[in-house]
Parts: sequence; structure tokens; C-alpha cells
Amino acid sequence: MDAELSLMPSMLSRGFEEAEFVMRLKNAQALMAAQGVSGLLLMSEPEVRYFTGFHTLFWQSPTRPWFVYVPVDGKPVAIIPEIGADLMRKTWIEDIRSWSAPAPQDDGISLLTELLTPLANAKAGLGIMKGHETGLRMPLGDWERLTKALPGLEIIDVTGLVQGLRMVKSEAELEKLRHICAIGSATFARVPEIAGNGFPLEEVFREFRRLALATGADDVPYLVGGAGPGGYTDVISPPSRRPLENGDVLMLDTGCTWDGYYCDFDRNWAIGHAGDPAKRAHDVLWRATDAGIVAARPGNTCSDVFHAMSRVLAELGDAGGDIGRLGHGLGMQLTEQPSLAGFERKVLEENMVLTIEPSVSYGDELMMVHEENIIVRSGGAELITARAPSELPVL
Amino acid sequence: MDAELSLMPSMLSRGFEEAEFVMRLKNAQALMAAQGVSGLLLMSEPEVRYFTGFHTLFWQSPTRPWFVYVPVDGKPVAIIPEIGADLMRKTWIEDIRSWSAPAPQDDGISLLTELLTPLANAKAGLGIMKGHETGLRMPLGDWERLTKALPGLEIIDVTGLVQGLRMVKSEAELEKLRHICAIGSATFARVPEIAGNGFPLEEVFREFRRLALATGADDVPYLVGGAGPGGYTDVISPPSRRPLENGDVLMLDTGCTWDGYYCDFDRNWAIGHAGDPAKRAHDVLWRATDAGIVAARPGNTCSDVFHAMSRVLAELGDAGGDIGRLGHGLGMQLTEQPSLAGFERKVLEENMVLTIEPSVSYGDELMMVHEENIIVRSGGAELITARAPSELPVL
Repeated sequence: MDAELSLMPSMLSRGFEEAEFVMRLKNAQALMAAQGVSGLLLMSEPEVRYFTGFHTLFWQSPTRPWFVYVPVDGKPVAIIPEIGADLMRKTWIEDIRSWSAPAPQDDGISLLTELLTPLANAKAGLGIMKGHETGLRMPLGDWERLTKALPGLEIIDVTGLVQGLRMVKSEAELEKLRHICAIGSATFARVPEIAGNGFPLEEVFREFRRLALATGADDVPYLVGGAGPGGYTDVISPPSRRPLENGDVLMLDTGCTWDGYYCDFDRNWAIGHAGDPAKRAHDVLWRATDAGIVAARPGNTCSDVFHAMSRVLAELGDAGGDIGRLGHGLGMQLTEQPSLAGFERKVLEENMVLTIEPSVSYGDELMMVHEENIIVRSGGAELITARAPSELPVL
Repeated sequence: MDAELSLMPSMLSRGFEEAEFVMRLKNAQALMAAQGVSGLLLMSEPEVRYFTGFHTLFWQSPTRPWFVYVPVDGKPVAIIPEIGADLMRKTWIEDIRSWSAPAPQDDGISLLTELLTPLANAKAGLGIMKGHETGLRMPLGDWERLTKALPGLEIIDVTGLVQGLRMVKSEAELEKLRHICAIGSATFARVPEIAGNGFPLEEVFREFRRLALATGADDVPYLVGGAGPGGYTDVISPPSRRPLENGDVLMLDTGCTWDGYYCDFDRNWAIGHAGDPAKRAHDVLWRATDAGIVAARPGNTCSDVFHAMSRVLAELGDAGGDIGRLGHGLGMQLTEQPSLAGFERKVLEENMVLTIEPSVSYGDELMMVHEENIIVRSGGAELITARAPSELPVL
């Protein structure tokens, strides 16, 4: 179960061969045909990138909408602001329709109307993602105008179709995920250089980001954590300036990226010495993680993995239910489908990438989290993070 | 017009006094009362943070929706996943309603329905942001369910109301913006240490991020740029591994953050030597920027500032129209309202923070961009970035 960690970026190429996009398109079109969907209208960063390879940080600006239309036959069409047309031309997409954005009166809506009118006239089905874990990355008012202009169009929720495709990773995607998890692991291994008694938490965060970059991460979009006497109380805070003190438990949870793919895992340390309640919580979490890794096999459901972990967590009288789940999918997004939750009956498939992420409450409103990243394989999970030590390490 | 750059983080406190939030709420409620809006339902990160102070990177996960309700009388109400309740309790918000998320069957919808039923029964107006530069950060399907469950509710588009409040910054916000612009300026000043002939562009990006963090940035969420012989062809690409070569023009454009506020500006350099077309483009852009800074006065419109820059850019036969605008607002987001565009009639007000960002095409499909950040002041713009040199610098 040991991860073979590789930090050789020169061995890995960025982006994907065109065959990867051909395969993604073919898989999507087979499902679309089976489900009576004539086209997909996609507008969020990971979906646009999934079908086109268009990769830019420009999505950070909320000003401009971006659209990709995936027809049931033929290649995707990009309907995008002019500022992105040059970069889109470097992808495999040929049909690129652009406008000078921002244009509040018509931010792509007339281009979309023109494109979709034949579908509306044919009373065909247009797939939109409108379900769990989605948002509408265009103004709601523009969406209302667009659908009003296309009254014949049948809107079909394709959340499951698209998430289902993205959940199962290709070998090329797995290489990128292994690489960024190796970078994350190597960064965590160097935390003793940047944290300990007297180090302000804010500086630990800053130096962690710098270490991750030096280790090969392109970016560290996500870094949260906590520290406090005997434990921490929440897991999504930005850092305080308070210096770490002997007796603290420190947790860092990071989503680093390489070529647009995330790792997402955390580590805990005791500062100076570890108290018994924290040691006990760490031990239970470590064994719950093991149980989750073992249960993460093709054919088992997400709920099965959740319950495998919950049974161990129950030793502390806590099933970890408050934060809703004990792990999730991982890929182009920090958190993706599926959820490792009691309600989730999805069956695991080979080449899904998951976080195994049990959490417990203990003591006086303290909590502890623990997380590893795995690939679901027929022969058992492939661990792609360097497994945390079984005992809470002391800095 | 020189910026007084300060890099003393210990002088600045994070977050805001409660009085800041009281003022924001009072300003919002005055506009709501005048416009017949009984409540605002907000769900995107900057709006939730604006009214509550809730600050976390957890928004990177698309899994869970977060809501804040701002009533026309009384304090805001947070309707949020349980995982954020502890952090929300550290803000000034008292009424916090949470659920164990994710819960695909009911991700906050019944809590929202309960909260909004009195409004619906009174056939009152609920404000939603559904206009330009917005998105719906919740599943469209959930939004449809919610409005169906509340048939009496009148939905009012409050995009202008909320963006109007956020466009004009408080003195406490301006301090944060000055600080992060000073950090960005100090980072750009050190680029000669990390870039030059033979440096792979990817490594320049990596080292720029590390420098910005060392200089005091909390994060570098946005870093794009380009490099090529005599100039670059697009401005939103991730870096290639190609080493810089003599004769290249290099551009880096960054959005660094401090305490949740962004700088957004760029710089250009020639590698080894600068060609005449690039020198000419830089000169025109520098003077266009000057013209934009001078025109950015209270009482002038955004269109006035755009045209002041366009008139200079016309020397190169290019009005910079393709990318839609020549600058924008800046604050909690990398790009905010207003747009410095020909179509934008908004009148500038004191304490708006703007990017002045002319761009030109030249040569064989090359382009060059140039950007500074300013505060609109009654006595003329306050430049908060260290002004780029008037001549294209050579590395």
C-alpha cells in the first residue's frame, strides 16, 4: 500500500494528447445518445477544460462568462470572450465563436441563441448541469433571457452524466494526480523545518506555501488549518498570528495543484508533547483511515466506505456526521463527486480518485481530521499520498 | 502621484471592527428601503464576507452552498453548512442556522424556505443578484425548487444595489488595498533576481509566487503572463517551460492577496535588448495609463476614462476594444465593477479603487498590456502601485 513517490516533473508532460479529448467526447456522446440529449451547454471551469483543454487562471475574474457546447455528433464549439480566443486556438477546438466581452447587454447570449435555435426548433434536449455540487456560472438573468428566446428547448439535467464521466480518471489524469500528491507528501515531510514552538501560525502557512512551490507545486490554492492547546476547534480558518506553543496540536490541510490537478490531504502534529486525548483521537483516525482504504474497492458503495470508517470512529462515540461526509472525489477540483457519505449509494469504480477523510470530535469541542488520497484499483486501493505516521508526530 | 509604499504588516490588523459591518448593513438597508426590497439573499464569497466578515478558503470546494440573508431591518442571518458554524460564530453574526452538508436532497432549502415564508406570505420583494458579473452559487435546480415553494415572493434584481455598495471602499478597506499593492510593487521590483536570458518561464512564475509570499502576500491566486520574441500573443496563459531568450518581451500580471483584498497589475520587461516596436508600444501604453490616471476623477464617467486612454492608444491605430475594457474595479475580487469601457456611463466616486489597464496590438499579432492601481480621490487619483518605468526596462 506504500506510495511510490515521484518528483520528476521533467518526466511528465503538461496537458493531454488529442486522443484524451477524443475519448472524453466519445464517452460523453455515447451517454448523450442513450439519454436523448442533443447537446451539452457547459460553463464552469473544470467542465470547459475537460472537453477542450482550455487552461487558464483567468477564471478568477468573475466578469466574463465562458461557454462550451458539446453536440451529440461532432466536435465541441467554444463560445467565449475574445480575450481567450488566442489561447483556445491552441487547443483541439476548431469552432471558436467569440465576442468583445464584457458586454453587459449581450454577453454571448445572441451567439448562444443562434447556436441553439436549431435544437429549439427541433424541440430537442439541451443538457445543463443544475444538480448537486453545481452552480450557474453566468448571470441568472441571462439564463432566463436565453431560455425565453428558445421556447421549444427541453432542458435536461445532466449533472449525473457529466460528473459520472469526470469521476473516473484516465491514466493520463492519474499520472498528474500521483505527481501532485507526491509533491504534497514531500512538502509535509519538511514541515519540521518551518513549524514548532514559537512559530506564528501565519508564518507557518506562508512558509508551507513557499515550500510546496519549491517542491514543484504550480500553486497552493487551498491551505487551511488550525492550532490550539490540546487540539483545534475548526478546520476551515485562515491562520492567526498566535505563535505555536508546547502542548498545541497543529493541523495543515492543503490543496496544491500541478497542471490543473489537485491533491487534498492534511497532517497533524503535536508541538513539544502530545496529550493523551489528542493521541487517542489520532490513533482512532489513523485506524479509521485504514478501514476506509481497505473498503475502497470496486463494487463497494460510497456508503460502505463511510460506514467502514464510522465503525472505528464510534470508539470515540462520534460517527463524524456533522460535517456531512468522510471523503470525496478529487481531480480538477479540490472536492468532486462522489461523497463518502451514508446517503451515497454510488458504486465505486476502478480509477476513481478519492480522499479518505475521517474526522472526530473529542474533549471540549475539539476536533481532529485525517486525510489520505487513493486511486480505486481492482486489486485494492493505490495509496498516492505518503501515509501519515500511525502515532501523532511531535515537533 | 508617487505611491508611499508600506510593508509593515504589524501595523495593520486583519479583519474589521464591528462598526465597519454596522455601516455596511446600514447603507444596504437604506437602499433596500428606498427600493422596496424586504431582504437580500446572498450566496457568493465576496458578498457573504462583505456583510458578515466570514473569511475562509473553503469556498474553493464547490460542494456546499452558503447563504446570508440581509433583512431590511435587523442583523444578517447566516444559513450555512455545519462545517462553517464555528468560524461564523467568531464574526458579528448572531443568528446562525446550519445543517449537516452535503445533503443533496436538502442543501439548506428547507431552512431557506422557513426563513423566507413570511416574506412570501406578505408578497414582499426578495433581492437576488442576477445581473452582469454575477453567477448563481447554488444548484439551479435548488433555486427553482426554492422559488416554486415560495410562490408569493417577488424576485428583485439587486445586482446594482450590492455592486454599488461594494464599489466604494471604506478607509479600512483602502488600507488593505494599499498594503497588498505595496507588496505587489516590492515583488515586481525584485523580478530582475528571478528572470532573464535562459530562465524557463515556468520557473519565473514559480519564483515570482515565492517572492510575493516572502514579501508579505498571503497568497498569489492569480499569476498569468507571456513571453516571446519581440512580444507576446496572449495575456491569460499559464507559463511554458521555454527559457527566456534575448529579444523576448516578458509580461507578468498578478493578483496577490492580503487579508482577502487583491492587487491586480502587471509589468513588462525586455530580455537582453528591446526592439523598436515593443519600445513604441510600451511608450504609448505608459502615456495612455497617465491619461487614464488623470481622467479618473469624481464626476467623470468610466467612459470618460476609457476614451482618455483610447485617444492615446489611437497613435498605434488600436483603441484596445477587443478585450472589452481598459480597466475595472478592484477589491475583494480580482475584477469588480465598474468597467472602464466605452459603454459604461457610471460616474466615478471618491474611494472607488480601479485598475488603469490599457492594451494595444502591434506587429504580427503581438499585444502588450500595462496596468496600475489607483484610488479615486477628490484631489486626483492616488496611485497605490509603484509606477512602472516610462521606458521598457531591460533584464
